Amino acid sequence: MSQYRVLIDADDKKGLVHKVSTVFYKSDMNILSNSEFVDKEKNKFFMRSVVEGDITLDRLHQLISDVMPKSANIEVIAPQNKNIIIMATKEMHALGDILIRNEAGELEANILCVISNYNNLESLVSKFNIPFVCISHVGLSRDEHENRIVEYLSKFEEVDYIVLAKYMRILTPKFVEAHENRIINIHHSFLPAFIGANPYKQAYERGVKIIGATSHFVNNNLDEGPIISQDVIHVDHAYGWQDMQRLGKDVEKVVLSRALKLALEDRIFVNANKTVIFQG
Amino acid sequence: MSQYRVLIDADDKKGLVHKVSTVFYKSDMNILSNSEFVDKEKNKFFMRSVVEGDITLDRLHQLISDVMPKSANIEVIAPQNKNIIIMATKEMHALGDILIRNEAGELEANILCVISNYNNLESLVSKFNIPFVCISHVGLSRDEHENRIVEYLSKFEEVDYIVLAKYMRILTPKFVEAHENRIINIHHSFLPAFIGANPYKQAYERGVKIIGATSHFVNNNLDEGPIISQDVIHVDHAYGWQDMQRLGKDVEKVVLSRALKLALEDRIFVNANKTVIFQG
Amino acid sequence: MSQYRVLIDADDKKGLVHKVSTVFYKSDMNILSNSEFVDKEKNKFFMRSVVEGDITLDRLHQLISDVMPKSANIEVIAPQNKNIIIMATKEMHALGDILIRNEAGELEANILCVISNYNNLESLVSKFNIPFVCISHVGLSRDEHENRIVEYLSKFEEVDYIVLAKYMRILTPKFVEAHENRIINIHHSFLPAFIGANPYKQAYERGVKIIGATSHFVNNNLDEGPIISQDVIHVDHAYGWQDMQRLGKDVEKVVLSRALKLALEDRIFVNANKTVIFQG
Amino acid sequence: MSQYRVLIDADDKKGLVHKVSTVFYKSDMNILSNSEFVDKEKNKFFMRSVVEGDITLDRLHQLISDVMPKSANIEVIAPQNKNIIIMATKEMHALGDILIRNEAGELEANILCVISNYNNLESLVSKFNIPFVCISHVGLSRDEHENRIVEYLSKFEEVDYIVLAKYMRILTPKFVEAHENRIINIHHSFLPAFIGANPYKQAYERGVKIIGATSHFVNNNLDEGPIISQDVIHVDHAYGWQDMQRLGKDVEKVVLSRALKLALEDRIFVNANKTVIFQG
Repeated sequence: MSQYRVLIDADDKKGLVHKVSTVFYKSDMNILSNSEFVDKEKNKFFMRSVVEGDITLDRLHQLISDVMPKSANIEVIAPQNKNIIIMATKEMHALGDILIRNEAGELEANILCVISNYNNLESLVSKFNIPFVCISHVGLSRDEHENRIVEYLSKFEEVDYIVLAKYMRILTPKFVEAHENRIINIHHSFLPAFIGANPYKQAYERGVKIIGATSHFVNNNLDEGPIISQDVIHVDHAYGWQDMQRLGKDVEKVVLSRALKLALEDRIFVNANKTVIFQG
Repeated sequence: MSQYRVLIDADDKKGLVHKVSTVFYKSDMNILSNSEFVDKEKNKFFMRSVVEGDITLDRLHQLISDVMPKSANIEVIAPQNKNIIIMATKEMHALGDILIRNEAGELEANILCVISNYNNLESLVSKFNIPFVCISHVGLSRDEHENRIVEYLSKFEEVDYIVLAKYMRILTPKFVEAHENRIINIHHSFLPAFIGANPYKQAYERGVKIIGATSHFVNNNLDEGPIISQDVIHVDHAYGWQDMQRLGKDVEKVVLSRALKLALEDRIFVNANKTVIFQG
Repeated sequence: MSQYRVLIDADDKKGLVHKVSTVFYKSDMNILSNSEFVDKEKNKFFMRSVVEGDITLDRLHQLISDVMPKSANIEVIAPQNKNIIIMATKEMHALGDILIRNEAGELEANILCVISNYNNLESLVSKFNIPFVCISHVGLSRDEHENRIVEYLSKFEEVDYIVLAKYMRILTPKFVEAHENRIINIHHSFLPAFIGANPYKQAYERGVKIIGATSHFVNNNLDEGPIISQDVIHVDHAYGWQDMQRLGKDVEKVVLSRALKLALEDRIFVNANKTVIFQG
Repeated sequence: MSQYRVLIDADDKKGLVHKVSTVFYKSDMNILSNSEFVDKEKNKFFMRSVVEGDITLDRLHQLISDVMPKSANIEVIAPQNKNIIIMATKEMHALGDILIRNEAGELEANILCVISNYNNLESLVSKFNIPFVCISHVGLSRDEHENRIVEYLSKFEEVDYIVLAKYMRILTPKFVEAHENRIINIHHSFLPAFIGANPYKQAYERGVKIIGATSHFVNNNLDEGPIISQDVIHVDHAYGWQDMQRLGKDVEKVVLSRALKLALEDRIFVNANKTVIFQG
């Protein structure tokens, strides 16, 4: 018996559920969970099923392809650890949270390496026997710096996700396009409020009573990619912006780790500039 | 084109989704939304579909029954206002919230009447042209009092839900059994904490940092019926129990109205002493 | 024995607490609660005390003034109902919530009247024996319309707060300045996200996972006045913008009523474009 | 200039704030923050001030003692790292969160050692150059096992707090009494719901829609000590108890770390079986 995650995204039309469920039924498969969503505005159908049965991945993919429209995107995935790269700058909380979860076996991930433009995280990362590489940006143009990162990354055959765990530099459009919907960022505000630099200071100056964090896929518009997860905490007038920053770290790390987990478990569809996420 | 809500609850076995979706497909129906859940522990299957097509309710029910196991519970429902009775005692907030929502057209409900064991809510209820009846318990045994309520209720042909909007008396097993999974209560604590009388005082004395409210179907064990909805708010040492009570009202009314809305929209399955709720 | 709320806002310097508490002590007063905050960035001191004793309001005010710097703002308030005007447009939920709370005796307020630019709320308001006046904007310029409102308001001697309970028109700078820090608005988004029209549609299109509401004092920059209260709820991809709008009403009404209660209880200081709020 | 935290807890009477603030004023001290609370039911006064000035700790303590009632508890504390012991069993998340925060310099703490009754956390702890000791309970009575722990602890001169980071064994009354209000536990439920073993299973079986975690000081009644911090997350029917357990870890670790931080910053008073906590 093998277990598969089946992800389908297609233009909506009558009978899609019928056709897929017929494949499962005729192949004598168990449906462990099944979620569907139709975006009526865009006329798009999304389905994620977890199924098990005595069938190969290729055969199951073929059977589903046979009944789906040509334009449908069909993924059949056998659960296994995904390869991830973490990029960070100086802060420990988001990176540390991922490292501890990985150590505890909570993540379906192999962390290939941690890349930083500073040295100070090396001591933390090396505790976990994960390669750490410092690629400093000092004295380099944005392109030169990024080229060094790209060069370093080229040694890895397959990278499923790049996780920006408080990586404080902006990536070039070229880099972003090369990893479309594969770069997960944590922004330290409740987007779309406080886009850009030092959002806690912006929040403090605006006098908000709630602060938040947002994990999202990165696209070419700063802080405007599809949102994966958000959460917030209440603050009041007694919090200075450094207090907000300190408190906000707890939200940031939980939100980023949650988004990463959703991605590793193949629960996220990107639907134009939004996400469809099946938690069930 | 008619719209129907299809609710199926059955022992789980392979092919249920296939069979139902085949009925929809062959009847040329659109699936507007579809949710499934399998309780693997109890081997129970739950499905709620909203569909539309050119078919009668009876015909659709028949077609589904034909493909489902004999023991399955199948409901096909054409959306329409449900008949509800509200029972309350003295407090206005939960009742008032329902009355305002009803006035605003937010609820799929006809409020047949409000029953109280006191007089003081009459002024509020009568503003909304809804019958108010005071059935006082003074000088009566529990059975005698309830018999008067039952007698009054007998004038209504069909009652879908009885909503206890802070009705502070205990119902008899006989009454509860006669309305199984049809009585919705709001308990002013985060159940199962603080079962019984004056939960805010209990919460205050325990020194909790969060208080909550719980809406649930009523069964014969006090405050132990299937939970529909819960929510909480943070408090601190500066809140006396009356402050908690005052603040708690905001949670109570929102939680009760949310549960009522879920019931009116046929989103709740009762699964032994728990609920399965499809929000999507 | 009389009870007073003492509110002091002053440039910070050593000894302010000492001086005020000495006044209370020498006047043989009980301190029922006491809160202080120093905004170190702006060097501003804020203090709210609830005290009781055998002293007149004027005498207490005099004693405190005698020990405070000339530039300090000192308010000594004997708790009593405040006069409020509610302005609304068409939606019932926020207005209805205030009406029910008022009916239940939860608010320290006299509702002088409800003003709307439409007729449809008249039926609701008149149930509560509160004057309703429709001042239509049809065929009028913004100034002409507002002049009619101002004329109507001129019949009231004293108005403490104007509550915009989903009043969907923009007020002129002249009107806003005439009621500085006295107009409380509810904006149906988590400000500063989604300023302006139809924030739920904006939120839906951005694909956020949390929506919120913000109550704030109105100043001359749209949706940019000092924030009083905010709250949020989680949503997901399955919520269309109308669903968000429907769900958001529950947050809007609670947040607005909370802000109004804080104002009525003299718990809010305005500190430039922010608020200092003492809940304790 | 030295900075001190002044903590006073006393029977309430008129003039306490006056007297303490007079000490600060006459000693030419700056008040950086000041919080007070009176428990009117128990007639108890609590005050926490952060002050700075040119004065010794002993002198300040003396001046305050001179004006306070004999029965008052007065603490004057110069901020410095506190000594803590962590006890854990097998789970990594709560322990790991503290280790990462400590590594990041977020905690005012020296972690003297981590004690576990199993071996499997050794690899994690030793990464951080913190002593790890396994004191197995296998084959020992509760008293024998605890005696070994006590013996090991005796080598440390001063221990401020013992943190139970998912330590799954019950401590004896003798141990608890020896560390009154100095042992901080995390219980994996929203207390007082689901006291005792496997609370997630209990929560699953009760069908709750929210799960939580509670940090509290340990006293001799299991899970009944004064509550420091609580938080919750929403769940639904689709969460099995292992899912709840997995998700609950995120709440547990944040709640425990928050409680620890409050303790390290001297923000917690114990008031009979409750806590008074000054966050400001």
